[in-house]
Amino acid sequence: MKTSGGSNAAKRRAGESAAAAVDDGDVVGLGTGSTAAHAIRRLGERVDAGLDVRGVPTSFASRELAADQGIPLVDLDRAVGPDAPGIDLAIDGADQVVTVAESGGGAGEHTGGTGSLGPANALVKGGGAAHAREKLVDTAADRFLVVADPSKETAVLDRPVPVEVLPAARSVVAEAVRSAGGDPELRAAERKDGPVVTDNGNLVIDCTFGGIADPSALSATLSGTPGVVEHGLFVDLADEIHVGTETGVRVVTR
Amino acid sequence: MKTSGGSNAAKRRAGESAAAAVDDGDVVGLGTGSTAAHAIRRLGERVDAGLDVRGVPTSFASRELAADQGIPLVDLDRAVGPDAPGIDLAIDGADQVVTVAESGGGAGEHTGGTGSLGPANALVKGGGAAHAREKLVDTAADRFLVVADPSKETAVLDRPVPVEVLPAARSVVAEAVRSAGGDPELRAAERKDGPVVTDNGNLVIDCTFGGIADPSALSATLSGTPGVVEHGLFVDLADEIHVGTETGVRVVTR
Repeated sequence: MKTSGGSNAAKRRAGESAAAAVDDGDVVGLGTGSTAAHAIRRLGERVDAGLDVRGVPTSFASRELAADQGIPLVDLDRAVGPDAPGIDLAIDGADQVVTVAESGGGAGEHTGGTGSLGPANALVKGGGAAHAREKLVDTAADRFLVVADPSKETAVLDRPVPVEVLPAARSVVAEAVRSAGGDPELRAAERKDGPVVTDNGNLVIDCTFGGIADPSALSATLSGTPGVVEHGLFVDLADEIHVGTETGVRVVTR
Repeated sequence: MKTSGGSNAAKRRAGESAAAAVDDGDVVGLGTGSTAAHAIRRLGERVDAGLDVRGVPTSFASRELAADQGIPLVDLDRAVGPDAPGIDLAIDGADQVVTVAESGGGAGEHTGGTGSLGPANALVKGGGAAHAREKLVDTAADRFLVVADPSKETAVLDRPVPVEVLPAARSVVAEAVRSAGGDPELRAAERKDGPVVTDNGNLVIDCTFGGIADPSALSATLSGTPGVVEHGLFVDLADEIHVGTETGVRVVTR
């Protein structure tokens, strides 16, 4: 689980703020990462207190944590469909998220209170290599709440974009990323020789593009590249961003 | 291996015509299916006669056949990259391919000789569930030669589009396909209980859209759907279509 950046207190405030948005009877997408974990733990406390929810995990890690917390779980393919309940909301973290307008006018959003998103509704996920399942659940949900701390906020995304690829596709996708102006690097594993293998049995290429001026266009390019299973750009998906700070929580709404 | 539609003689002429386009020293993408198999067999005969080629298989089946035919093989991730030879051409079949203009003017293309593609450069693949690897290889190749017989030709694609999905994504993708006006059906296996599992460990949803008026738009929609690993619409990829007939071969060039 990623624990980089941001204080634990800020992450906890963000996670607990999002968990407070869950209503009785909801089906909830359960995100991956250290900030989403705070939301899952708080949700577990609310279940102990009698809240009726079912969770849809986005990864092996979030499934384990939710089960430990006593949250009843439902499989994604049982939660979505013609006769299924649907997912009411998803709570998930981000490696980097746009909350600040790129130029002029947006400065007020940094000073607290409830602001509105800047020009791009975009974020990067996939530091934990779970972004394929995360995007699946977060997209399927009626509402998607992002939990973050100030170290994740930016005006222009410039973190490497994790791209999950079929194992045989790594060279072809790397070439396509170079053609799109990016610098691809196969993610190496630790505590295992060779590359990171995802929960889906695939590989991850971290792609550095510098500042991403048009996340929507890059998202379409990556989605259309053969061999790409899923990429870590989430565009026009977030409904609310709960940013935990040292003193409180700032909620940015679309 | 699919063997539906078209006479074996027509398929053989198409495959042999495409195999004749291979030059000494080429790296060749080797397609999947009964028509591409004729190309692989002819290529094997040319290797026996001294041709120097290396093949990049698109599937388990084409790898086995090529090895049986004595064609030297190279892995896709060794064929493509900064210091790699690249793929000179790929030869692959199609379940259905646009060779006929939708209205007016295109009738001459049905009478033989060399015509030009109608308004859409589009085809459907994936009857054999190998379309993810096929698209990877066919896209990476400098030239992509499609081999077909007249039973595969159409003015408007209307075959179900096979969509390979992550196993956990089947309900979410099925909902997205319904939203896009399609009718999704999980492909059931034969000689195995449950669904077909692809060479990549995923599932296949066959999606019926009726006539596909805008293959490019549908391709972008499917590519952008979370959980979709690859879909069977190949748009703007074909350079030549070799159509074997009862009496000869007609080549349609972009």
